Amino acid sequence: MIPKERDLMNDVVLTGDRPTGPLHLGHYFGSLANRVRLQDLHPMYVLIADYQVITDRDLPGEIRRHTTELLLDYLAIGIDPAKVTIFQHSAIPELNQLLLPFLSLVSVAELGRNPTVKDEIAHSSQAAVSGLMFTYPVHQAADILFCKGTLVPVGKDQLPHLEVARLVARRFNDRYGEVFPLPEAMMGAQPMLKGLDGGKMSKSRGNAIALSATEDETALLIRKARTDAERLITFEEERRPEVANLLTLAGLCLGRPPAELAEEIGDGGAATLKRVVTEAVNEFLRPIRKRRAELTEGDARRILAEGNERARERAVRTLEEVRAAMGF
Amino acid sequence: MIPKERDLMNDVVLTGDRPTGPLHLGHYFGSLANRVRLQDLHPMYVLIADYQVITDRDLPGEIRRHTTELLLDYLAIGIDPAKVTIFQHSAIPELNQLLLPFLSLVSVAELGRNPTVKDEIAHSSQAAVSGLMFTYPVHQAADILFCKGTLVPVGKDQLPHLEVARLVARRFNDRYGEVFPLPEAMMGAQPMLKGLDGGKMSKSRGNAIALSATEDETALLIRKARTDAERLITFEEERRPEVANLLTLAGLCLGRPPAELAEEIGDGGAATLKRVVTEAVNEFLRPIRKRRAELTEGDARRILAEGNERARERAVRTLEEVRAAMGF
Repeated sequence: MIPKERDLMNDVVLTGDRPTGPLHLGHYFGSLANRVRLQDLHPMYVLIADYQVITDRDLPGEIRRHTTELLLDYLAIGIDPAKVTIFQHSAIPELNQLLLPFLSLVSVAELGRNPTVKDEIAHSSQAAVSGLMFTYPVHQAADILFCKGTLVPVGKDQLPHLEVARLVARRFNDRYGEVFPLPEAMMGAQPMLKGLDGGKMSKSRGNAIALSATEDETALLIRKARTDAERLITFEEERRPEVANLLTLAGLCLGRPPAELAEEIGDGGAATLKRVVTEAVNEFLRPIRKRRAELTEGDARRILAEGNERARERAVRTLEEVRAAMGF
Repeated sequence: MIPKERDLMNDVVLTGDRPTGPLHLGHYFGSLANRVRLQDLHPMYVLIADYQVITDRDLPGEIRRHTTELLLDYLAIGIDPAKVTIFQHSAIPELNQLLLPFLSLVSVAELGRNPTVKDEIAHSSQAAVSGLMFTYPVHQAADILFCKGTLVPVGKDQLPHLEVARLVARRFNDRYGEVFPLPEAMMGAQPMLKGLDGGKMSKSRGNAIALSATEDETALLIRKARTDAERLITFEEERRPEVANLLTLAGLCLGRPPAELAEEIGDGGAATLKRVVTEAVNEFLRPIRKRRAELTEGDARRILAEGNERARERAVRTLEEVRAAMGF
């Protein structure tokens, strides 16, 4: 089947997060900022992937609270629910039903070969690999295809998942007739922000600045950040990764090149560097904190309910098309 | 967790069929007759397992026609839609959504060990084992548990599936609190009816009498049935399996012991035997044919729509309980 000519104006973006804890600056500069830009260009669906939380852990944790906080984070950074459909995976049965016909299009051997699944299995806290983990690229295909998503912002490690979604779409279309567009990966040139200890930025390591952190919490985290003993501040990513990482963070917040900041700080040492970074981050987070303070949990719940309803209408239409194409 | 004391009065029966073709007398005496009895004793759900059709074949075939015919067969044999909820798997998204949390409770190793899946894989017409086939005992768990089914009429070969449903129910209850009763197998002492050629009775082998067969079709099929050269008709299952099978069929239709029929036929030979069997089967099918002739496809569609609606209400309630128990 010859794919229709690609019309970028018709793209639909699908993206999302697991509700496992507050979003931090790494998320912001890695993906959230991009969403805020994209929401003016394309219809966008933002998935709160609640079922994905139980792929690699036994219990979903405080998922209701995390879902509300995720929503407040989205709104605080400027995701506009009038433009973007924010929804919960578990609230859309018609989306989840797509898993069944889609699973019939993928072989067990193909599922077992998926490198991301292999990797997730290696890092899982579960005693044994669950059936949900094993089939999770196919859920993700349903997440992408239910809204006929065509653009999926992904990191490099998620590319194999997108391949499964493309495979499912292609096989469905070949077997039952053209229903799904083939989704494409959208790989940004995202800066690699490390945690304040130089390791991978992650909430659980305590090395990340949450978008919801107060000024004092932010200052404290940066005060404890790892640097080095050299008084002259320079931007050398290879030789001085911790200092470079702090400069990158400040640069992103200020919209300025990190090397330029280094020059300004000169021989002010780690203390000056940290003061500059703290001010930059707090300045950057100020409007985000302000918007967040104006929002209530009630707002979050209402917006999620509206998003769920919109996503559900979309899913109902797609499922009807799928059932009709299959002759059900 | 201590299971609640079993109260047989509260049992809910779940049973069903794949919509792959018309039902025949083997189905009737093997399971359908039992359903007609059970419908006066317990709430019952009868599943038209449409997604199961694509577990082991690439395409669902004429599934819409088969679904209508299955429904007409049910109604013709006396399944009463006022007592029994007849529904299609694919029409109940909330049932299908249960697959996701349930898949998180079962390991890939456990799925791979299921002997019925192994067997299905061996007989599959697909080039490779699909993800749907591999996870299919978990769909069946969802089929049973969505209506809190407690009694599942099964053949011996389906027992491992029921074990998966029990495992899922037990693990869900242990992890999230008591939501599901543990379903039990209901194994009947069903007579083993063979096909008219002595092989396994199956529509595709042309050795089965469909419930919808006309008198002439029935007579023709029985005329071509395999017998042996002995003139004296006796009921000897080991030594004369084909003759014994015909006697069993006539006996079931007449409600009489096959050995008694053999004695009556005496040395009438295969011709008399076949005449007796043909009359018995046609007599038996007469009221079934009559009811069927009174029904229209419109009746079938309306009854299915009503059943789907009732099943869906049940599924919505169960899914709400499941999501609440999980903290979603």
